[in-house]
Amino acid sequence: MTSQHPTPGDARPGGRTARNTAAVLQATLDELGERGYGAITVDSVAARSGVHKATVYRRWGGVDGLVRAALEHSTERHWEPELTGSLYTDLLRLVETVTSGFTEAPEREVSAAAVAAAFESEEVAEALHRFMSDRHRRAAVIVTEAIARGEAPRGTDAEEVIRSAIAPVYYRLLISREPVTADDLRRAASITAAAAAAGTFTGTPGPPTP
Amino acid sequence: MTSQHPTPGDARPGGRTARNTAAVLQATLDELGERGYGAITVDSVAARSGVHKATVYRRWGGVDGLVRAALEHSTERHWEPELTGSLYTDLLRLVETVTSGFTEAPEREVSAAAVAAAFESEEVAEALHRFMSDRHRRAAVIVTEAIARGEAPRGTDAEEVIRSAIAPVYYRLLISREPVTADDLRRAASITAAAAAAGTFTGTPGPPTP
Repeated sequence: MTSQHPTPGDARPGGRTARNTAAVLQATLDELGERGYGAITVDSVAARSGVHKATVYRRWGGVDGLVRAALEHSTERHWEPELTGSLYTDLLRLVETVTSGFTEAPEREVSAAAVAAAFESEEVAEALHRFMSDRHRRAAVIVTEAIARGEAPRGTDAEEVIRSAIAPVYYRLLISREPVTADDLRRAASITAAAAAAGTFTGTPGPPTP
Repeated sequence: MTSQHPTPGDARPGGRTARNTAAVLQATLDELGERGYGAITVDSVAARSGVHKATVYRRWGGVDGLVRAALEHSTERHWEPELTGSLYTDLLRLVETVTSGFTEAPEREVSAAAVAAAFESEEVAEALHRFMSDRHRRAAVIVTEAIARGEAPRGTDAEEVIRSAIAPVYYRLLISREPVTADDLRRAASITAAAAAAGTFTGTPGPPTP
């Protein structure tokens, strides 16, 4: 054995365990994207990753555990929103990014499959919730920067601003099953930025003030 | 045979064919809600409805055809939004109705199952799209009445107002997997009513005017 081939069970980053984990979770995402949650098996993930299926069963327990771990693995990846200097353009870049995640390779099929799998498994639904909560938190810097620039009042619920901007994109793509146009994205960003400026995301909501 | 037991193939409303259709489509919705799309079979729908499975195969072709027909059957049902006299309260009632459709029996499981099934079948996805488009059209009266009262300018895209109000509810329940509170509903209605009043749903969207 050389340093290229560490001993079994080596848990160092870059060691065999780490490589096996990365291979298995990537194979899970690939299977999820290409075949969907209903068609994934521990056998297919093991075969695709080149890791023995007894190892896969021992570490992840089954398909739900694999999908949950793959989503958690995605959560840990570095992601931060682009900051462009204004709330409207930051939100516009954000909704453009969300849209391309559902319409462009390589994430396209996986994003929809993760949402679909959450309907089938409580374990996956909880992992999806944690993944989305993490994204809300990371994207919130868009709003804290806007507050610092005076574009929205102090006390603005930053994560709620993020939800408000991205919800129409998810709604069209996954619920009403309609295309998302550039105008749709501009409208989502515009409505949310205007509502934030008007203080709608602070305190208790009620009827709009004329 | 009496008038209570029409001849086979009788297609009159209330005749045997109509009763069989209603029984099969209701059984499909029940199976969808209780067991999910992945577990429905023509056999289970036939058994539950009391209609022979050869008849089910002949008329609906298979599970996708059954789920599509059941959604189309739901589309034909009478539904109209409640009109309360102001855009904000009309939108609030609408989002309350959408939320209870996902959280209260008997629609609860079926609504989520239809969205889930659309990920698995293009035929179901198209039926869901038609169902949601029909709902957008029916709910649009909320906005045309608001325009008539002067609460929103002429040229307001009524269906887009509806999407904007309901998207955050679907997002929380089915994507980020979070509870929907009364404040969330008030905020969704308030933001949308304010944006409609400001003319955001007319013409080409762009940066908000300060």
